[in-house]
Amino acid sequence: MTKYVYDFAEGGRDMKDLLGGKGANLAEMTSLGLPVPPGFVITTEACRAYLANGEVPSELAAEVDEHLAALEAQMGKRLGDAEDPLLVSVRSGAKFSMPGMMDTVLNIGLNDESVNGLAKQSGSERFAWDSYRRLVQMFGKTVLGVEGFEEVLDEVKKAKGTKDDLDLDEVDLRAVVERFKGLVQAATGQPFPQDPRAQMELATAAVFDSWDGERAKLYRRQERIPADLGTAVNICTMVFGNLGMDSGTGVAFTRDPASGAQGVYGDYLQNAQGEDVVAGIRNTLPLAELEGLDKASYDQLLGVMETLERHYRDLCDIEFTIERGKLWMLQTRVGKRTAGAAFRIATQLVDEGLISEDEALDRVTGAQLVRLMFPAFGATDEATKDETLLGKGMGASPGAAVGKVVFDSDTAVAAAARGEDVILVRRETTPDDLAGMIAAQGILTSRGGKTSHAAVVARGMGKTCVCGAEDLEVDLEAKTITSPDGTVVAEGDVVSIDGTSGAVYLGAVPVRPSPVVQYFEGELDVAESDDLVRAVDRLVRHADAARRLAVRANADNAEDAERARRFGAAGIGLCRTEHMFLGDRRQLVEDLVLADGPEAQAEALAALLPMQREDFTGILRAMDGLPVTVRLIDPPLHEFLPDLTELSVEVAVAEATGQSIDPRRQVLLDAVRRLHEQNPMIGLRGVRLGLVIPGLFGMQVRALAEAAKGLRDEGLDPRPEIMVPLVSAVQELEIVREEALRILAEVGVEALVGTMIEIPRAALTAGQIAEAADFFSFGTNDLTQMGWGFSRDDVEAAFFSRYLDLGIFGVSPFESIDRDGVGRLLAIAVEEGRAAKPGLKVGVCGEHGGDPDSVHFFHTAGLDYVSCSPFRVPVARLEAGRAAVAAASSDTR
Amino acid sequence: MTKYVYDFAEGGRDMKDLLGGKGANLAEMTSLGLPVPPGFVITTEACRAYLANGEVPSELAAEVDEHLAALEAQMGKRLGDAEDPLLVSVRSGAKFSMPGMMDTVLNIGLNDESVNGLAKQSGSERFAWDSYRRLVQMFGKTVLGVEGFEEVLDEVKKAKGTKDDLDLDEVDLRAVVERFKGLVQAATGQPFPQDPRAQMELATAAVFDSWDGERAKLYRRQERIPADLGTAVNICTMVFGNLGMDSGTGVAFTRDPASGAQGVYGDYLQNAQGEDVVAGIRNTLPLAELEGLDKASYDQLLGVMETLERHYRDLCDIEFTIERGKLWMLQTRVGKRTAGAAFRIATQLVDEGLISEDEALDRVTGAQLVRLMFPAFGATDEATKDETLLGKGMGASPGAAVGKVVFDSDTAVAAAARGEDVILVRRETTPDDLAGMIAAQGILTSRGGKTSHAAVVARGMGKTCVCGAEDLEVDLEAKTITSPDGTVVAEGDVVSIDGTSGAVYLGAVPVRPSPVVQYFEGELDVAESDDLVRAVDRLVRHADAARRLAVRANADNAEDAERARRFGAAGIGLCRTEHMFLGDRRQLVEDLVLADGPEAQAEALAALLPMQREDFTGILRAMDGLPVTVRLIDPPLHEFLPDLTELSVEVAVAEATGQSIDPRRQVLLDAVRRLHEQNPMIGLRGVRLGLVIPGLFGMQVRALAEAAKGLRDEGLDPRPEIMVPLVSAVQELEIVREEALRILAEVGVEALVGTMIEIPRAALTAGQIAEAADFFSFGTNDLTQMGWGFSRDDVEAAFFSRYLDLGIFGVSPFESIDRDGVGRLLAIAVEEGRAAKPGLKVGVCGEHGGDPDSVHFFHTAGLDYVSCSPFRVPVARLEAGRAAVAAASSDTR
Repeated sequence: MTKYVYDFAEGGRDMKDLLGGKGANLAEMTSLGLPVPPGFVITTEACRAYLANGEVPSELAAEVDEHLAALEAQMGKRLGDAEDPLLVSVRSGAKFSMPGMMDTVLNIGLNDESVNGLAKQSGSERFAWDSYRRLVQMFGKTVLGVEGFEEVLDEVKKAKGTKDDLDLDEVDLRAVVERFKGLVQAATGQPFPQDPRAQMELATAAVFDSWDGERAKLYRRQERIPADLGTAVNICTMVFGNLGMDSGTGVAFTRDPASGAQGVYGDYLQNAQGEDVVAGIRNTLPLAELEGLDKASYDQLLGVMETLERHYRDLCDIEFTIERGKLWMLQTRVGKRTAGAAFRIATQLVDEGLISEDEALDRVTGAQLVRLMFPAFGATDEATKDETLLGKGMGASPGAAVGKVVFDSDTAVAAAARGEDVILVRRETTPDDLAGMIAAQGILTSRGGKTSHAAVVARGMGKTCVCGAEDLEVDLEAKTITSPDGTVVAEGDVVSIDGTSGAVYLGAVPVRPSPVVQYFEGELDVAESDDLVRAVDRLVRHADAARRLAVRANADNAEDAERARRFGAAGIGLCRTEHMFLGDRRQLVEDLVLADGPEAQAEALAALLPMQREDFTGILRAMDGLPVTVRLIDPPLHEFLPDLTELSVEVAVAEATGQSIDPRRQVLLDAVRRLHEQNPMIGLRGVRLGLVIPGLFGMQVRALAEAAKGLRDEGLDPRPEIMVPLVSAVQELEIVREEALRILAEVGVEALVGTMIEIPRAALTAGQIAEAADFFSFGTNDLTQMGWGFSRDDVEAAFFSRYLDLGIFGVSPFESIDRDGVGRLLAIAVEEGRAAKPGLKVGVCGEHGGDPDSVHFFHTAGLDYVSCSPFRVPVARLEAGRAAVAAASSDTR
Repeated sequence: MTKYVYDFAEGGRDMKDLLGGKGANLAEMTSLGLPVPPGFVITTEACRAYLANGEVPSELAAEVDEHLAALEAQMGKRLGDAEDPLLVSVRSGAKFSMPGMMDTVLNIGLNDESVNGLAKQSGSERFAWDSYRRLVQMFGKTVLGVEGFEEVLDEVKKAKGTKDDLDLDEVDLRAVVERFKGLVQAATGQPFPQDPRAQMELATAAVFDSWDGERAKLYRRQERIPADLGTAVNICTMVFGNLGMDSGTGVAFTRDPASGAQGVYGDYLQNAQGEDVVAGIRNTLPLAELEGLDKASYDQLLGVMETLERHYRDLCDIEFTIERGKLWMLQTRVGKRTAGAAFRIATQLVDEGLISEDEALDRVTGAQLVRLMFPAFGATDEATKDETLLGKGMGASPGAAVGKVVFDSDTAVAAAARGEDVILVRRETTPDDLAGMIAAQGILTSRGGKTSHAAVVARGMGKTCVCGAEDLEVDLEAKTITSPDGTVVAEGDVVSIDGTSGAVYLGAVPVRPSPVVQYFEGELDVAESDDLVRAVDRLVRHADAARRLAVRANADNAEDAERARRFGAAGIGLCRTEHMFLGDRRQLVEDLVLADGPEAQAEALAALLPMQREDFTGILRAMDGLPVTVRLIDPPLHEFLPDLTELSVEVAVAEATGQSIDPRRQVLLDAVRRLHEQNPMIGLRGVRLGLVIPGLFGMQVRALAEAAKGLRDEGLDPRPEIMVPLVSAVQELEIVREEALRILAEVGVEALVGTMIEIPRAALTAGQIAEAADFFSFGTNDLTQMGWGFSRDDVEAAFFSRYLDLGIFGVSPFESIDRDGVGRLLAIAVEEGRAAKPGLKVGVCGEHGGDPDSVHFFHTAGLDYVSCSPFRVPVARLEAGRAAVAAASSDTR
């Protein structure tokens, strides 16, 4: 028979699936002998049965009876007993912490009779009625959905001329309870339930139901938490922090979650129950002051914290209550921390002998390293900063940006054109604001959260953004921002925004480069650096030793290649060649497009060849001895020409007004019209262009081969690789490969010839394509575009914020690889490509190559390397190491 | 040990893989006791070994020796013997007939000595030297690659003052042989090989090599013939049709390949070898005249034809030679035939008891039925037609088109705008001609083949096209076409082009509707119709009985729905709703786009609702009792608005010239700019639009539900199904489905709610999506666009002709489904969708639903139905039946 109920003494922290996180940790603390109030857990399995059938399993009541009886026997009290009632809390607790779910009902077991028993036993009428008031309020609100309790309480306090709950006496609280019960009767048509068991069962069912509440469902969709886990319910003997000034409740961390420093961190509130701390009704005390109030409990608490940290081998956060001098532990879990603290704590724990270096690596993430690599505002003069703080929003896209305030897209574009840095300020952004967002240094909105349009688009652009700064009043008509203290910021005034903390400052706050970046640049001496840099150095080096994935960089010029090398890149995974057609060379590309025959085309190509050769020479030199993968030209030719609409307007207006037109403009317009495409992203580009314009790819291959030849003649060791873009069928690759090998042989150098896998069909026919490829490199950007049918330029701004809000995906598939769809294509291609050609070299060169979560996937999929922007190389190194360690540890399990 | 050589008496027609088509059929005729000159076959396996290792297998020589010795013994002659030489032919013969491969070398075994023996044995010096001349010429050209033989022969004939080979006597021919040998010596640096075995071995190797010739490789790529089959080589005793006027050679069909009528069809040429018939040097006689020349051979030939047809149970074509009154069979195979003949012959053979109805169905194809359904030029007055025939090209895209000749795209567009029918005439077309091709009734080019730009684009458009009419001189400057007889056609003159036969006529040839279409329309009484209509009726009805796939139609209005029903559709598989937003309703869509808030949007939607309801009512009424799948709006909204460039020019010109602008145009321009997308095909459309514009999908669902309700209240049986387009993630579908079910319940009707599978990711996550779908319908057009990364609007015109030429694909993937890529996605989705939801209804509604080859694939993939244009419904019915019969017969094998 299924067991639906576990005593705290029966479980442990490995049972989160069944008992939820909270229940498993309560059980763990119980088994550690820590002072946990006795209680039991109703399992997630009971929840799943309830959700499937609309009622709790028939066996559950008897099991609960049994555990309740044992609890009553242990405590020597009976639930809701009129003379000496046992009271319990009912708390939800899923495997993953989940906002939107019902949280807690305290003081279950009180009713019109047992309140008197509680008063008698506690010796405090006020305490008893305060507890009953709390029960009716919490139960009424969360279980029965009744509103209006806060308002009543405020009225009563106002009538009494106070703002503090503690000023209400027993008489006041009796009256409050009566009015609360009246609210329940009015709203539900039923009196407040007096049967303690009914209270418990209703609260349990309400917790179960809250699993499928709208906000919980949305959160799960966004966080990709499976919908069928269910939540557990914790039934726990009540202990009381509101029994007087010798009682209280608090939260604590075993180390500083901001810096990682060891010490006593937390808050304590006397004569209160847990929800008072959260509600912020009264000011809490620093935890250290508890020593002066109750040294015994304080010392005991420090001992418990020590025990927990040694046991969990990590920073823990805890909730506790002191009931008349007796300490009780109500919750613990491994605590959240800042990025810097994560690195510091992980290495501290290694030094303390608590964890291994592998484990330390597992405790930090690439996402944290990214945060440490953004420039930040100098924290040297905290006072100055606070003086100019205008307000706070959400840090939606990290970085630090400084600029003049502008309130609309056109002004932003105009200012940027003048070379001015601007911050675009809007209530919220829409696709209309796109040009302004591109032009601005940073974006500030007063509405919307981390999935708002501004946040999504800014992250896509890698642009600093603060969202939902609700205390700033943005007046678009008057073109002002007004802060809560009345400061008015006008258009043109300079502000500074912090995309990590969400802070908004008046004036130009100095931006401080990241010491972690300085370290990677080789500008810092590690031994003399602060502990953060030392921690990063240590863990990244450990990751290097552990990882199987090589990390290359995407770089198109010698400067980027050199930087990538400093950042630890093992070569270039993607050298785009189209950037080499811009600037002065546009004219030559125009000549190519306008060429009226093969000879003129060949001439235009011949003019481009020496320039390309020079570009390649620089990059190969910077990466001497390391592989450099050169992608043949990818974008459609019209990208190098003027915009159709602009040129059409120019010519039409000139005609209409009788101005003379440069005949070349007219010829160009004809060409632009001819080359115009409905959907250039899926038009004539990549290998298609190479097959349609004879000699184009050949020129590039020859330039690369000659560059390599020249360097080899200098005694260097160039290692070029040729990559063909946008292949969808092996036949395309065969034709290009044949020509490339011929040219390489002519010049007398060798190079691998491989292909991008960036079209779904290429992935699906990878077995065929592998026959003609020396390597595969996944272009996950295009593979995502085609796999989802998403034109990134269009869809990110048009509807990604709505999609994130609707929970259609939890993160943009351009940010982190979509494992089910795009990832599956990749896995198919790796497997079938290697089956056709054992040992085929396989890498990835889309932006996902630098995304922490995606790197894990690429490790698991068996890739040989990832390639990402130079800046992301350290992140990829770290995550590749973490992935290897995680895989090794799950292998040995 | 591998056996590389088979005597004709050892093989049979089932051995085509090993012996090639020609060898297998020669063996079959031998075993039937028909008069086949003795010989043997070197297998395709020997060819494969040769191609892999660069030399023939070491065992081959001994095997050939053995078979040659047996042949010599049988014939009583020795190969190349100086006194009485055995001569042989060496002929290629792959499994599939393949242009581009070396064909035949006759008279192997002749040399400077044996030519005298042959003269002695045959009693004709002239014959012997004519045969030697032929050997040097054919061997020299095809084995040694020497050119110039034709020119020498022409010179000699000219010097003699004749045009006929037969006028050259022994002396002339001796001189010709000397000059031919001189050509060989000059070109190869070697004398013409005198060793008969060497001749045979060189010819065999040349046949093997020709398998990998450029044209052969190209052909294989285009026809998707595997590259590793190899070809067999047939070594056959020579018989001579050039031994005098009692000898000759001919070709014949066992029935009329044009009409299917039984009788004697073929050509005969006296005193000639096979290549003379093909070369067309002299005029052939109708086969029936052989009766007067050589009644015995004629009667024997009729007997052989009767035997072959009964044996092969099909129309056969044959090649034969008569050597001094003795009939020899040189080749047979199942013969090609016209579309009409295929249907007639198939039913005739059933009536003759030779084949079953299932087999008859297998003998006709949907592609043939398509050809029968195009309108054609009336064939009633053949004489008139021939008088106006200007010339012939290739029938590149079927149909019959009549219109005024124009020579450039702009003129075509202008004429079409005036309502005139035009034929666009070009030397060849380029993407620049696209607008003109769209405007024209038909396209005529003087250059390029079936994969030329004009051909590919016209087929994509379903527009009549004749390509490569090389005997017509197109002068674009003078704007004239000149025919071989000097007729000059000027711009504006009317011509008629036949996209099936490739004929080009001067003047307006009357177009005759297809009787097959009239039959499907129900306009003909089958019993009183001609045998073609009766054959079609019979086989389509048999297909209906056999098929498992249901056939639905794509129809957007009541008229199309009614026609589809007449054509046998079992419902509507795709009712597009966007067409319902055009015309008068554009204004309402503009209102929707320009709406400045939810209320204005709701108002615009409310105005559209009654119109949509009316549309749906008409279609549901036409399809009463049958399912109607309505696709919610799919295209991006800006498709309903003016073009960005045009509107920009309009507004800019008005501003520059000081004209007043309708303020609504300016507002509209802002909206068009805002909605403009880089790649609308993969932008904000389909379900994305439904999720971004609240109420849009809801309005459509309500209109459909109310339409169904209204009809049900009338006592009818409407069966609406709701289809959500462009889903890439199950979450999208869940949200729309929830709303749709709510609205259906409100109105009080039921409908299935399913989804298109047209995005690769949808196919790859079909198991998830099936949970929220009542059915899948594959949108293979979009699936092909995304799967290949092909924007059809752009790529077809830009490079498909080049891709077909390069053999990257043999047929456009938009025409016939790409099994390896897109087909694989489809198979994955069917399998995983059904695994998640057994019995899930699955169909296809892309254009591939009406493509014969694709229908077979859809049958094999286990689909429930295909949906195609009404016109294609009969084709799909036929092919679905053929697929079922083929599958059943392969099951029972």
